[in-house]
Parts: sequence; C-alpha cells; structure tokens
Amino acid sequence: MPTYTAPIKDLQFVLHDVLNISGSDIPGYEDLEADFTAAILKEAGKISSEVLAPLNVVGDTEGCRLENGVVYTPTGFKAAFEQVKDGHWTGLDMPEEFGGQNMPAVIGSAVGEMFSGANQAFTMYQGLTHGAASAILAHGTDEQKAKWLPKMVSCEWTGTMNLTEPHCGTDLGLMRTKAEPQGDGTYKISGQKIFISAGDHDMADNIVHLVLAKIPGGPEGIKGVSLFIVPKFKVDEDGNIGARNGVSVGNIEKKMGIHGNSTCVLNYDEAEGYLLGEEHKGMRAMFTMMNEARLGVGMQGLSQAAAAYENAVAYAKDRLQGRDVTGAKNPDGPADPLIVHPDIRRSLMDQKSFIEGARAFILWGATMIDAAHRKGDKDADGLVSLLTPVIKGFLTDEGYDMTVKAQQVYGGHGYIEEHGMSQFTRDARIAMIYEGANGVQALDLVGRKLAQDGGKHVMAFFELVKSFAKENAGQNEAFDRDFLAPLKAASKDLQAAGMYFMQSGMKNPNDALSGSNDFMHLFGHVCLGLMWAQMARAAQAALDTGTSDVAFYETKLMTGRYYMARRLPITATHLARIQSGSDTVMGLDAANF
Amino acid sequence: MPTYTAPIKDLQFVLHDVLNISGSDIPGYEDLEADFTAAILKEAGKISSEVLAPLNVVGDTEGCRLENGVVYTPTGFKAAFEQVKDGHWTGLDMPEEFGGQNMPAVIGSAVGEMFSGANQAFTMYQGLTHGAASAILAHGTDEQKAKWLPKMVSCEWTGTMNLTEPHCGTDLGLMRTKAEPQGDGTYKISGQKIFISAGDHDMADNIVHLVLAKIPGGPEGIKGVSLFIVPKFKVDEDGNIGARNGVSVGNIEKKMGIHGNSTCVLNYDEAEGYLLGEEHKGMRAMFTMMNEARLGVGMQGLSQAAAAYENAVAYAKDRLQGRDVTGAKNPDGPADPLIVHPDIRRSLMDQKSFIEGARAFILWGATMIDAAHRKGDKDADGLVSLLTPVIKGFLTDEGYDMTVKAQQVYGGHGYIEEHGMSQFTRDARIAMIYEGANGVQALDLVGRKLAQDGGKHVMAFFELVKSFAKENAGQNEAFDRDFLAPLKAASKDLQAAGMYFMQSGMKNPNDALSGSNDFMHLFGHVCLGLMWAQMARAAQAALDTGTSDVAFYETKLMTGRYYMARRLPITATHLARIQSGSDTVMGLDAANF
Repeated sequence: MPTYTAPIKDLQFVLHDVLNISGSDIPGYEDLEADFTAAILKEAGKISSEVLAPLNVVGDTEGCRLENGVVYTPTGFKAAFEQVKDGHWTGLDMPEEFGGQNMPAVIGSAVGEMFSGANQAFTMYQGLTHGAASAILAHGTDEQKAKWLPKMVSCEWTGTMNLTEPHCGTDLGLMRTKAEPQGDGTYKISGQKIFISAGDHDMADNIVHLVLAKIPGGPEGIKGVSLFIVPKFKVDEDGNIGARNGVSVGNIEKKMGIHGNSTCVLNYDEAEGYLLGEEHKGMRAMFTMMNEARLGVGMQGLSQAAAAYENAVAYAKDRLQGRDVTGAKNPDGPADPLIVHPDIRRSLMDQKSFIEGARAFILWGATMIDAAHRKGDKDADGLVSLLTPVIKGFLTDEGYDMTVKAQQVYGGHGYIEEHGMSQFTRDARIAMIYEGANGVQALDLVGRKLAQDGGKHVMAFFELVKSFAKENAGQNEAFDRDFLAPLKAASKDLQAAGMYFMQSGMKNPNDALSGSNDFMHLFGHVCLGLMWAQMARAAQAALDTGTSDVAFYETKLMTGRYYMARRLPITATHLARIQSGSDTVMGLDAANF
Repeated sequence: MPTYTAPIKDLQFVLHDVLNISGSDIPGYEDLEADFTAAILKEAGKISSEVLAPLNVVGDTEGCRLENGVVYTPTGFKAAFEQVKDGHWTGLDMPEEFGGQNMPAVIGSAVGEMFSGANQAFTMYQGLTHGAASAILAHGTDEQKAKWLPKMVSCEWTGTMNLTEPHCGTDLGLMRTKAEPQGDGTYKISGQKIFISAGDHDMADNIVHLVLAKIPGGPEGIKGVSLFIVPKFKVDEDGNIGARNGVSVGNIEKKMGIHGNSTCVLNYDEAEGYLLGEEHKGMRAMFTMMNEARLGVGMQGLSQAAAAYENAVAYAKDRLQGRDVTGAKNPDGPADPLIVHPDIRRSLMDQKSFIEGARAFILWGATMIDAAHRKGDKDADGLVSLLTPVIKGFLTDEGYDMTVKAQQVYGGHGYIEEHGMSQFTRDARIAMIYEGANGVQALDLVGRKLAQDGGKHVMAFFELVKSFAKENAGQNEAFDRDFLAPLKAASKDLQAAGMYFMQSGMKNPNDALSGSNDFMHLFGHVCLGLMWAQMARAAQAALDTGTSDVAFYETKLMTGRYYMARRLPITATHLARIQSGSDTVMGLDAANF
C-alpha cells in the first residue's frame, strides 16, 4: 500500500527561505514565524499520514454506496472526518467570528496539499464545504451567514456546488433547473443536477447545496441564472434541523477514480431554497466558489503527483533490476536498484522538478490571495486572477502526466491495483476536467484574463520576471547561466506568443484560441521557471551564508537546473505551435473529421 | 456505449496510394490488388464492429473470474472467439501448411488494428497465441511444429508467454523458475510466473505456455535461460488431450484495465515441459515472440487512440455547448456543437494526425517484415529491427496521450464509466508497460539498435529521408514549404542527437542513456513526419491526376499540414533535452530524491 509523507521541509523552505512570509506586511503574516508554521504543518502531516492516507485505498476499493436513498461512505471515512473536525482543520482559514482559525490562505494551501495528497476523495468533502462557505461569506446576508456558516466552518454540515445538468456543462446558459418565487422570500427549486461531488453522504448532519437555477421570466441564458441555498434538511430559526427538503439522490456515478467521494445525481423536486446574492447574478456569486475551487484543483494536480512520486522513489530504490551501465552500485546484491538507471532518473527528475516548482507556484498564488483579501492589494488580486487558469489547467495537466510517470516506474506492478499507483492516475485524471475543463481554463486565460484591465496584469508579470532577473544578475556566473538565461528566453517566448495574439487574434479570434492550450502551458512553464530561479537564489543564499544542511540546498539547485535545462525548453515548441495560427486547426469541415 | 467503425478507406489509402503494395516484388504481394484487400478488410471490419466492439464494455465491466481453479471469461467472449476461429482470422498470416491463409504481415497488421481497436482485451487471446506459434515456427523441431502448430493456428489451443516472476521483470537473468531434465527429453518445470496475459480461460481446449526457465548447472544469469513448451493438458502422440499438467492458476490480477483478459499468476509444480530451441538459448527464441509482440503492442497504441477518437468526434459533433466565437454555426439550436471550438479542434487534430501517421508507420513496418521474411531482404530486416522500439515505445506513449485527449473532449462525461471513454485510457495504459516498458524500448534503441551493424540501419533511414526529399522537391511549392522543409529540419535534429550520442556517449554512456526517451520520441516524430510527407505526396498526386474524391485527399493534405506545423516542431525540444547531457539527470545522490 502506498505511503504518504508530509513534505514539511520543502513547504517550510518555500514559506520562509523563498517567500519570507513572516517578513511580509500582509495582516496576519506577522505571526507566521518558522517555528509556528512548522508546528501546524507537523500536526497536519501527522493526520495526513496516519489517518487519511491509510483510507485512500479503502475509499478506492469500496467506493460509496446508495441504499434506500441513503449514501454510505467507505469504511473509516466517518471516523476520520470526526478527527479532522475535532482538530479544527476544516475552519483553518475561516473567520474566527464563525468558528474558524483565521489563518491566512497560504497556510490553508500548505495544509490542503497534504490532506489532498493523502486522500483526495476524502478531502473533497471538506473542500466543497469550504467553497460553499466562501460563497455565503462573500454574498450572504448577515442572517444567512449566522445561520449557515458556523455549522459549515466546523463541517458539522457540509456543502456542495450544483452547476451541471445532463445537457449543460460549461454552457450554463442552457440550464433548465427552475426556481419559483413563493412570495415569502423562499423559492421552490426543481430540476436535475449531475456530477455533484460530495452530493450526499453519512458524515454530516446536514448538507448545504448551493444550486444554480433560473427564476421564470428572467433574462435568457446565463444572465438569468441565480444562486440558491438549498439544504438537505430544512433548518428552523433557532438552527434546529427540521423536515427533509425536496432533494433526493438519483444515483451515484461510476467513475474512473475518486471512488471515495460520492458523485451524485441530485433530483430537486420543489425543494425550498433561499436566494444567495442578487437575482440573476448567480454566476458572480458562483465564481467566488469557482475561483477558489480552481486553485484547490490546481493543488490536487500537485498533490497527487507528489504522493505518487514519493512511492515511485521508494520503489526505485528498493527494486533490484539490471546493473548500472557504468559499474555495479550494489555488487553484493543480485542486481542494482532501479534508481541507477538514467531513464528512471529522468522520469523521477521530471516529477521532482515539477512538484517542487508547482508547490512554490501555489504558495506564491496563496500569498497573492492573502494580499488581496487582507490588504486590499488590487495588483495582487489582478495577477492571481490572471494566473488562476494557469494554476488550474497547467498544474493538473502536468500533475496527471507525473502520476503516469510515477506509475511507469513500477512497470507491470504499476498496472495492477495492488500497489495503489493506478489510483493516483485515476484520481488525478478528474482534476483536468472538473471546475472547468482545462480547455475552458485556456479559453478563460486567452479570451478574457490576458486583456483584463487593458492587459495590465500580464504586463505586471513580465515586469516581475524582468526585475527579478535584473536584481539578481551578475552575482553568480552559474546562476546567470543556469537560471536567468533560460528564464529570460522562456519569458521572451511567452511575450512573443502574447504579441502574436494581439496582432493576429484581433483580425481572427481563432488564431488566438487555436493557441490557447499551448499558451496556458507556455505560461505555466515560465511561472515554474520563475519559481525555480527564486528557489535557486534562496538556496544559493543559504549555501553562501553557511548552512548545516548543505545537501538539502544543493539538491534544490540541482533540481532547479534540471527544470531549466530539460523542461523549460519546451516553451519554444509551444510558441511555434501558437505562431502556426489557426489555418490547419480550423481548416477541415466538421464532416471530414 | 462507444461505437467502432473500421477505417477501411484510410487503410486502403495507405496500402495502395502510399505503399502501392500490389506493385511490390515481395512474394505474395502480387495478389494484393485493391479490390481483394478491400474485401478482406470489409469482412474483418464487420466482425470488429458487430461482434467484438459490443463486448468491449462487457469485458471491462465483468472482468474474468477464477472459481475452483477454473477461469471464466466475460459473457459473450466464448461465442465471439468461435466466430473469429470459424472465419479463419486466427491464422491469417500463418503458413498454409499448418492451416493458415499465408497472407503477408501487412494484411495481418491491417486486420489486427481493427480487432484490437474493437476489443483489445479480447484480441490479446489470439495475439498471444500468434506470438507463441511464431516462436515454435521459428525454433521448433518438425515434430513440435506438427504437434502444436495446427491447433494453435486455428486457436483451438491458445498460447502464452511466461517471462516475468515476482522479483524479476526486465532483468530476466534473476529468474528462479527451474527446468530439471528427466533424461527422456522432457523437463520438469517448477516456479511462479506472474502477469501472464491470457494465462488461463475457458475458450480453448488447451493452452500452450511458452515458459522461460533455468536448467540447473547452466550458465549464470541471462545466458542460462532456456525456453520450454509447457501445455496446460498433456498431449499424446496422436494429438489427443490427456492428463492435466502441473500448472495451476494462483490468482487473476486486479488491473487498471484490459479486464476482459485474464492476467494470471501461474504456478508450475513439476509440470512437464519440452525444450524449444537450444538449451540456454531461450532468450533468442523468446525474442522471436517479443519482437512480433512489440510491433503488435505499438499497434495497440494506435488502435485505442483510433477507437477513442472516433467516439470523441461523434460527441464533438453532437454535444451542443457554447457558440462559435466567429458567429453561430447552429443558430436555430440552443448552442453550437463542440466541434466549432478551436481548442476542441486542436485536440481532435492532434489525435487525427497522430492516428493516420501511426497507421502508415505500422503498415510500412509490416512491409519491411514481409520483405525480410518473404524475400530475405536483410536491409529491410535491419531497418525494422531499428524501428521496432520506436513503433512500440513512441506509438504507445502517444497513443495513450491521445486516448486521454479523446476522453477530455467528453468533459465530465468522459470521467464516468458510462460512456466508455475511461476504458480506452485504462486499456491503452498497459501498452506502455508490457513487452518491455517504454524505458526499456528507449534503452534498446539507443544502447543497442543505433550502433547495430556499424550504424548501418540508422544511416539507411537518413538516406531514405534524404532521397525522398530530393526526389520530390521543386514540383509543388506548397509541398516543399509545408512538408519537405519541416521534415528536413526534424531529420536534422535527429541526426544532431545521434551525433551527440556518438561524441558524448562514447566518453560517458550516461550522456546517451539520459537522452534515450527523448531520442525515441524524436525518432518517432521524424518517422511520422516522413509518413505524412509520403501521404501528402500520394494525396497530391491523386488530386493532380483528377479524383472524384477531392474532399478525402484534401483532408489528408490538411491533416498532414497540421502534423508538420504543430506536432513536428517538438523535435527541437527533444534535441535540447538530449544535448543537455546527463549532469542534471545523474547529479543527485539516491538519498536526495
């Protein structure tokens, strides 16, 4: 069975050596000294390794079951959920007012990576609740907040997001679910929602569904969509659970992975619902959840890659097969361990350099969210908004590929379910799809985010790269050659791609959209290149000032050099694809496919 | 449920327009006129679509089961296997002497793609038998051939390959299975073999296991390995089935995919076995099966990609979601079909251009096998030997990625099992692993095949590209620009990579081996680039001479242009990775991963 070890040292390196969070002026960061964050991470790591990880295979094997309208989660999930609740992990970065710990998002992200890496399907119950609570926090009335949030922050009640219907996924304007106003401030919700993660289960006393629906007579399409709070059980004015509401489970979907999470078809039949935010402004409210969820999903890409990698490394060190071509490394044994073989190392280094770069990227993103929320920093808000589709799309595409690579290290033993490596790829696969399939992320990036506020945020990103390079050039020849030069080249490719979109995309939007996926990946690589340059600088500084942990920092430098030398050059290919335009992409009649 | 449509028109295009097989001087090719091959392909297509494809999901859902030592295949498999046997498909390219049809391998490959595309797990029962029969054909005595082949060619008895043991996969020198000579020409085989595809089942009267084992007292390691015929039931001199032999099923593995194939743990307990080929020369005999199997596995990469693509196209045309950004294409409907969106097309064109290129590559490879076997063409033998790891490794890596892309077109509907898209990726995943994991293919290519016969075969490949370019230059400006120029650039990258290996790899073999995976992919792209240039030339010729099927040939040109413009440029990235050497790949101590 796979193991899970919390990457505490690596997280601490990013939080302190690289991001220097306790030196930041973001309110709340002043408390985040290294000892303090280490204590939190250690506790979260303990529950991840000891409680959540052992249930990961159980969840995959047993799955959830529906019996007489009741959904049962896999053996052990309920008890583990109690432990997570008891530890107050569910409200880690929620306001104290509603029972939370008021920690910054950067700490929530660090803890989230561990929980998700240990057991993605399990952690989704909590993650969906967090998203729903955030939407109520942002758009609810004081009364709604007081009624729903304390129970959701503690996960006594969990939450869901209800967008998709059988005929409508990305294109929510096609929605058919109806919300009939009852004249008393309530609505009757009727319709079918599908793919509802954590849609029903036996781990909470109530479930708070956030449901998109159309109020009859409202505007056509997406502009007529409103968001409603629809609880599984109605709740009286004193917060007591009352009668069952008109929502029932039609089915639990059979999926490729995340079997431990109950993905439900939910049927709403005149269920009582309460408007959240304004009428017909449901999408705006829903996007509060969606943006948060997208960052969380990007983190899932990282977390599954990291968990799979840990096990691949262990297997590569343990499994004896073949001999080092330059001379036996284990001459007294029957063969050398797999890790002596260059192609195994190539695969492991692909994984390692992605994982550590992605971890820095996500934590950097979280600091921008904190800066936006806690300091009102509009530039940070704009930049993280630009980078959200990159974090979601790039990190989940790559994260999935990395789980496939980790599985491959096991050879045939990776294909049988016994070792658990198949589960990492099957679980990781969903992250490329939900919360907006990655093609939609690429469209959001190129079709909307790039030009937002007159292109101000992408210019700020380029400026960031430029000033980093300028400030750090000329101090260390190896750093200039191995890090700054490739970073500048990759950033130049990204700028050239943006320029191509501006010039050609204006005349023909298909020229831009045909390159959207490549642009998202190109951007992602430049971000990871920037992260590695920053990590290398921090590692070099530690080495220069004298550290007792030389191997740790030298490993950072070597892993970063690998990324710059062997992963970053693909930006040129993405640029070539983008610059080839839309002729060959759009050339065929649909009939000729 | 997914559909399967035989790609008869595309196969015919490659066989006749591109390869002009009936004009070849390979013995047996003179009969392969277009009408004749069309008739065969049509019949094979019919059984694929109507008999095998409907059982694909059944096999995945039911799997195989072991009850009281007996393995049962999924519902319908047995009846379908009878139909395949009755149609004489199992011996299509086997000698008439043993009941086969004596067709060239190129026809066997074309039919094989369809069978495998319709139902990979099912077709493996027949494929393994074919491989085992080929080994007996090549290495058996006349008596062994007479005894085993007629029943195996007809698949009354099926075959298996037994290499892997729990502690030994790639490194077969570690093998523990023993073969004790009995002094009467027979051996007693004892040991455990794992991952035995089609290892046991209820569809044949007997199963002929080909088993690698060590004769006590023989040389150490791989040089002491011999190959044995070990039937499930002993067979008397008249060919009658007798007593059960000492081989039993320990377990059926739970796998990520190919559930319809019974992957067995087989326990040998003094089973009676007969030496195939010479003592201690088992690997040579096994490689007859392995090389054939590797080409067949490469074809599986293609076949799953093609089957998944067919369904992705259908879904993209049917599913209404969003609007064409340049203006509604389905203004009377609630939304436009997915296929109007550039990023969906980008994905479909990635798939289409890979599939058609891979199909040409495999059929070209099969003509070389025919030239080698039927005409004694040593150059063809050398070239296909060089290309075998590329066909296996590149086509299965890419084929898998394409099934993931096809699944992605379905969004959330691709993740649930209901639509069958998950099965294509789960089934395709094994092809990257079995018959030598793709890292081993890359090692075989760079560590052995490249330098074989003094590098003669890779030089011949470059010469082939060069002379093709020379012969076809200057006749059509668009062809020169869109096909020849990118092909020459990619081929130059491949040559530069080979040169780097020669120069650096001599000093440090890790410099070559660190780039082996990239080299395999670089080589694969150049091969597909060459295939597309040849297909484009053939399509252009058809258009120039006047054809009634203009759309078909123009679609070929457009698809080829896509490959050259958007897929081939990645050769530069592979070259950059290769030329970065082994420093960053081998730099870390194992402890620091």
